[in-house]
Amino acid sequence: MRDVAVIGIGMTKWGELWEKSLRDIYVETALLAMKDAGIDKLDSMYIGSMSSGLFVGQEHLASMLADYLGQAPIPAVRVESACVSGGLAVRLGFMEVASGISDMVLVSGIEKMTDVSGNEATYALGTAADQEYEGYQGITFPGLYSLMARAHMHKYGTTREQLAMVAVKNHKNGSKNPLAQFPFEVTVDTVLNSVMVADPLRILDCSPITDGAAAAVICSLETAKKLNKPIIKIIGTGHATDMIQLAHRKDLTWLNATYLSGKQAYEMAGKKPKDMDFAEVHDCFTIAEICVTEALGFTEKGKGGKIVESGETSMGGRIPVNPSGGLKSKGHPVGATGVAQVVEIVKQLRGEAGERQVKDAKIGIAQNMGGSGGSTVCHIFERE
Amino acid sequence: MRDVAVIGIGMTKWGELWEKSLRDIYVETALLAMKDAGIDKLDSMYIGSMSSGLFVGQEHLASMLADYLGQAPIPAVRVESACVSGGLAVRLGFMEVASGISDMVLVSGIEKMTDVSGNEATYALGTAADQEYEGYQGITFPGLYSLMARAHMHKYGTTREQLAMVAVKNHKNGSKNPLAQFPFEVTVDTVLNSVMVADPLRILDCSPITDGAAAAVICSLETAKKLNKPIIKIIGTGHATDMIQLAHRKDLTWLNATYLSGKQAYEMAGKKPKDMDFAEVHDCFTIAEICVTEALGFTEKGKGGKIVESGETSMGGRIPVNPSGGLKSKGHPVGATGVAQVVEIVKQLRGEAGERQVKDAKIGIAQNMGGSGGSTVCHIFERE
Repeated sequence: MRDVAVIGIGMTKWGELWEKSLRDIYVETALLAMKDAGIDKLDSMYIGSMSSGLFVGQEHLASMLADYLGQAPIPAVRVESACVSGGLAVRLGFMEVASGISDMVLVSGIEKMTDVSGNEATYALGTAADQEYEGYQGITFPGLYSLMARAHMHKYGTTREQLAMVAVKNHKNGSKNPLAQFPFEVTVDTVLNSVMVADPLRILDCSPITDGAAAAVICSLETAKKLNKPIIKIIGTGHATDMIQLAHRKDLTWLNATYLSGKQAYEMAGKKPKDMDFAEVHDCFTIAEICVTEALGFTEKGKGGKIVESGETSMGGRIPVNPSGGLKSKGHPVGATGVAQVVEIVKQLRGEAGERQVKDAKIGIAQNMGGSGGSTVCHIFERE
Repeated sequence: MRDVAVIGIGMTKWGELWEKSLRDIYVETALLAMKDAGIDKLDSMYIGSMSSGLFVGQEHLASMLADYLGQAPIPAVRVESACVSGGLAVRLGFMEVASGISDMVLVSGIEKMTDVSGNEATYALGTAADQEYEGYQGITFPGLYSLMARAHMHKYGTTREQLAMVAVKNHKNGSKNPLAQFPFEVTVDTVLNSVMVADPLRILDCSPITDGAAAAVICSLETAKKLNKPIIKIIGTGHATDMIQLAHRKDLTWLNATYLSGKQAYEMAGKKPKDMDFAEVHDCFTIAEICVTEALGFTEKGKGGKIVESGETSMGGRIPVNPSGGLKSKGHPVGATGVAQVVEIVKQLRGEAGERQVKDAKIGIAQNMGGSGGSTVCHIFERE
């Protein structure tokens, strides 16, 4: 296994991009990453997308995007694992480069979600749950995460206010991210008084529906050095699955796939949670970030609410979580999210994050999760 | 790169399986492959599926299937490249084992297509074309392949009867395949008098809509030898893309992605087209097999119609093509097809193909194609 580095990143402003089609958004983003890397030829491409079929009626996605990016006839693979599609594209690209099969690989993610109605988008997102059992009962994702939130509040005394503090922190970070969909601050009061979605989760506890893409160019460390690029190494990767149904899990508050994939990544990197300078995690709902910080070992089981309240996960705290603004403020084009985490981590490690720069950032972890935690991918990055 | 072997295969009877759900079909098939391999634990899984979102409302497919197969928390990846999703699952699994990342990987494909109406299935399949250009004009796959057929007839003098002979040959082979959806013979006259779909293609020129899955267990050659299994090695792999739109190609009759992926696989295997004892190829329409046999080098450009007429691609001929019955007779659950080709090749190389056994088969090639040829994967297998 060779060492692998990220040498280029690309992302454009996320939001309701009605004036652009999926392929436009993709090509614009991919070209930014290739320009940043200083290359114009790829060996292969991985594209994460959850449901281009349901959202825009386009499958055979990798072939179409390789063609429109001017890269056909190279191999191009679309991977899907709901909201972890992007993280999985990163992992497969990493494996292809690490194994020596290819040297220059574009890893990317995209989702165009706002060309359909809200109901259609909710249906499409609901296909990440167990369709025959959870879907059949009519439960959608805010409902599933509200069950996790209630269980966490019941078991550990997590408060409604602590949930809100995740949104407050991430929107504060996101207000300094010019590419964020909702770059504004919110207060605990605003969150607590926002529209109810699935008790106890309100609209400001939920990540939005977003159009967007993200891309990164990865290659062997050797090639990265030859190209004289700022070098950010991928030093750990992990991937695990869990029961897809919430009802099948022993503990609604414990994200076992996050725990296991994090453990794999830490072990591969030879690092511990305390070695992380910051993290980009999957805050699709406020409760998700609370559970994730526990499963990644940033705090003990049950204390995810307390560390957000204490400020330990804020900028300047012990372990800043979601300096980018997270899914909550930056937006959540589901297939793109895992790659956007990589974009933020590389910016932070290069010292290019501007007003939201994490001081002396040398190591960062990305955690990207599908469904209610049925699949998770983690990656650890280090500045050389 | 380590040598890789197939040590287990699984496939059940294909057809309109209304009494079984997607997960039932999958688990039944995967367990057959694991039983054949004599193993009950996997390191990771790849699942090819084109559009489980549009066909059954289930994305996050790999997580769900790993769970229902009792294999969670192992990594599970769904890949999509339209009708080459299955072939791509084989390729990625191969790469994971060859690189030493994993040792025991299940590669598989599934599609449950008959739970929706014919119109909905046609729409879902149409998402493999360029949605904004080809789809917008209302063209679906029989139309696209009919353009290729007309171009081939015009340029090379291929006859309507030669197209029919592909169906006659493949149904004859498929009549000896107990797992085929349509295991009956047809005559040239039946084909020529069957219902018109898109001139010149009639219903018996088209592969059917099918529910089905296929699976194979692959591992390192070293492990295969320890397990004392009949060893079928994967000695070559290739993957290429092409312009997704037919209108963008220089020559409607030439499948460049098939040519390139075949070339990669031949070169990796150190073999030539003439070294192949038989082939399983992507006859989604009769014209497709004619074009594929040219692009794989079984005959010269333009002579694909002539070699079917001469009997060279029949059982007992120079290079039997689609001994399984092909997509035409066996059925075409799109995401499963590429893996079913592997199942047939392994059966042939093990000498377990019964009435349709290719004599002294030692080397076979599988060619699996997406859309109108926008992506293709080829694999070459050799009996040790």
